[in-house]
Amino acid sequence: MLELLLNRGAERRLKRGHLWIYSNEVDTKRSPLKGIAPGSLCQVHDSKGKLLGTAFVNPSQLICGRLVSRKSSFDEIDISERLLSSLSLRQRYFEHPSYRLIYGDSDGLPGLVVDRFGDYLAVQVSNWGMEHFQQQVVDKLIELVQPEGILLRNDHQGRAVEGMPQVKEVVFGDVPEMAPFEENGVPLLAPIHEGQKTGWFYDHRENRRLLNRWVKGKRVLDLFSYAGGWGVQALANGATSTTCVDASQQALDWCRVNADHNGLVDKLNTVHGKALDVLKAMVADGEKFDVIVLDPPAFIKRRKDHKAGLSAYRHINELAMRLLGEDGLLVSASCSMHLQSDELLDCVRGAAHRLGRHARILASGGQGADHPVHPAIPETSYLKAHFAHLSGNRW
Amino acid sequence: MLELLLNRGAERRLKRGHLWIYSNEVDTKRSPLKGIAPGSLCQVHDSKGKLLGTAFVNPSQLICGRLVSRKSSFDEIDISERLLSSLSLRQRYFEHPSYRLIYGDSDGLPGLVVDRFGDYLAVQVSNWGMEHFQQQVVDKLIELVQPEGILLRNDHQGRAVEGMPQVKEVVFGDVPEMAPFEENGVPLLAPIHEGQKTGWFYDHRENRRLLNRWVKGKRVLDLFSYAGGWGVQALANGATSTTCVDASQQALDWCRVNADHNGLVDKLNTVHGKALDVLKAMVADGEKFDVIVLDPPAFIKRRKDHKAGLSAYRHINELAMRLLGEDGLLVSASCSMHLQSDELLDCVRGAAHRLGRHARILASGGQGADHPVHPAIPETSYLKAHFAHLSGNRW
Repeated sequence: MLELLLNRGAERRLKRGHLWIYSNEVDTKRSPLKGIAPGSLCQVHDSKGKLLGTAFVNPSQLICGRLVSRKSSFDEIDISERLLSSLSLRQRYFEHPSYRLIYGDSDGLPGLVVDRFGDYLAVQVSNWGMEHFQQQVVDKLIELVQPEGILLRNDHQGRAVEGMPQVKEVVFGDVPEMAPFEENGVPLLAPIHEGQKTGWFYDHRENRRLLNRWVKGKRVLDLFSYAGGWGVQALANGATSTTCVDASQQALDWCRVNADHNGLVDKLNTVHGKALDVLKAMVADGEKFDVIVLDPPAFIKRRKDHKAGLSAYRHINELAMRLLGEDGLLVSASCSMHLQSDELLDCVRGAAHRLGRHARILASGGQGADHPVHPAIPETSYLKAHFAHLSGNRW
Repeated sequence: MLELLLNRGAERRLKRGHLWIYSNEVDTKRSPLKGIAPGSLCQVHDSKGKLLGTAFVNPSQLICGRLVSRKSSFDEIDISERLLSSLSLRQRYFEHPSYRLIYGDSDGLPGLVVDRFGDYLAVQVSNWGMEHFQQQVVDKLIELVQPEGILLRNDHQGRAVEGMPQVKEVVFGDVPEMAPFEENGVPLLAPIHEGQKTGWFYDHRENRRLLNRWVKGKRVLDLFSYAGGWGVQALANGATSTTCVDASQQALDWCRVNADHNGLVDKLNTVHGKALDVLKAMVADGEKFDVIVLDPPAFIKRRKDHKAGLSAYRHINELAMRLLGEDGLLVSASCSMHLQSDELLDCVRGAAHRLGRHARILASGGQGADHPVHPAIPETSYLKAHFAHLSGNRW
């Protein structure tokens, strides 16, 4: 196997449990990265030659290595062990087989995501190292989960960065357009072929579960609704009405499908348009809601976008808050890894301050247990949601 | 009314929404603190004389002022408004009248805590300013809540710092030794006369609620159990057994009372002793548990204790983790305001690392909605709990 030697001191993060190796941490004089085929397995050593483990290596990437083992080898037996451990963890903590079954680094499988919708699996591979094990992963998933079908959703942008081909194909059995599953006891349908990423965002499951307790008799506004993860669940938990807003008509159609699936389509309003435009129009019309969910896509995709992104979060939080009735609940979320939870909280604080309202944060949540955080890899924690109760006047 | 002038720039934090004034922020040449009677209401101005609001002032304290209003006055009408708003917030978000009804600064009432156990209230006052309004608070609580009894628990250490007398007395109606209430649907009894603080720690309610979903058929160890907040709820949710450990025999007796209240006393074990000693003995005996709750008292009471306290958290997390079976769940909590959530997470990471185990953080929680965080006052957020699943071997 190829060997990589790291610069002096570069082993520290790895020794604390992190799995990533940056290209400037490799001693390229002693062990050139150039010429290593993308996805090669390499043994990684510290500057003194002590083994640190085995990594997937892609010499063209900033993160050029991802440790997959602390031993001198990695093979399909390791893959099997981790798939089994991850399945067993989900079975232990979830009643219904609807969850993210594999969450990359946290489950010891860098570059692999598997979402389970009952009998169907959506698989996403995002680095060359895992790509080489793709068939073994699929075979083992068939054996362990015995699904009806497996869909490969290798059509995401992240692959382009690694120079990997775009592929979307059913690699086992049959997979329906809309896969039935449930979240927090609510039956739903995920557009796993045509939807974003793997078709559903399970990560907010616990935040939605909390909101579900607080929506009875409330008028709910669900911004950036996608297929209705928040809004339809709110209806199923007694909300008087939900207004879903999305820039994609297809997403709103899926909202409708999901509301209909629960016999609640008469309580659903959909508004097609960009959230900012829709918010401004609603403010102008003097509309008010009891509960507003603000769960936008990542405004900060790269670290250098931080300032502009933070400003966008500030702006939209204030706009949304203007639509909240005298005593109302704002759920302000962000999936930007580069936005800290406290920074998002400060967007809520600032908006309340400027509008002269008193804010009380009732809860602050993160990812569900099927997106476990690796305690040595802060990058595995990206989701935040603050539940802010806004009273009429600041005292 | 007395007037305080702040130093130039000292208004910034207040303008962002914070409520505290430090003694070194007061322009004592222009407005001496000396001679102001503790608890006086003072108008606070910035260095240019612009009104910032009205504060409770105690000249002998490091935090010498606590803003209670952004206006030029504060009176019992303001107290009434905030009590009503806080009650209405709890009624909106809680099904059962068991909650912290008033949480100090976050509810616009610095120095006041009121815990509600159904028909009974425990009231705690911690600064002279609020002390002067105590009778008005009690009268208004009687009117709004119509309780059977109100107990004043002004016997806590915080008052000694402000030079306030220690008082424990029933100021309205009758209050039983053990007050019936519920948490997460489990009927319980709080030792409101003799227990710590107001008798119960509601703050962990949501973390316990989450744990309750994951304890069925499990053997649970509840360290620093106090009256069984975690352990007895776990039993009521299907745990096979719970072992409560506490240095206070009285606390263990209350655990027994609560387990008995749920008809589950036969599944409860109690171990009297210091947690560290008990842990060491259990490790020596090779004992194992499926779920361990580590919810110690604050190891870092003052900022200067940070280093020693962090080290204590590291040590006890590792000790506890040694008792966890091959696939087990550690709930690692801290109520130290001076310990950051990430620091506690790092204690879990380090312990797992040293024991060669793979940790996945399933959830990270904070205070329940009855301890709302004030978004401009980081000090109102102090509680954290990490739910860490530990697998047998690190990969």
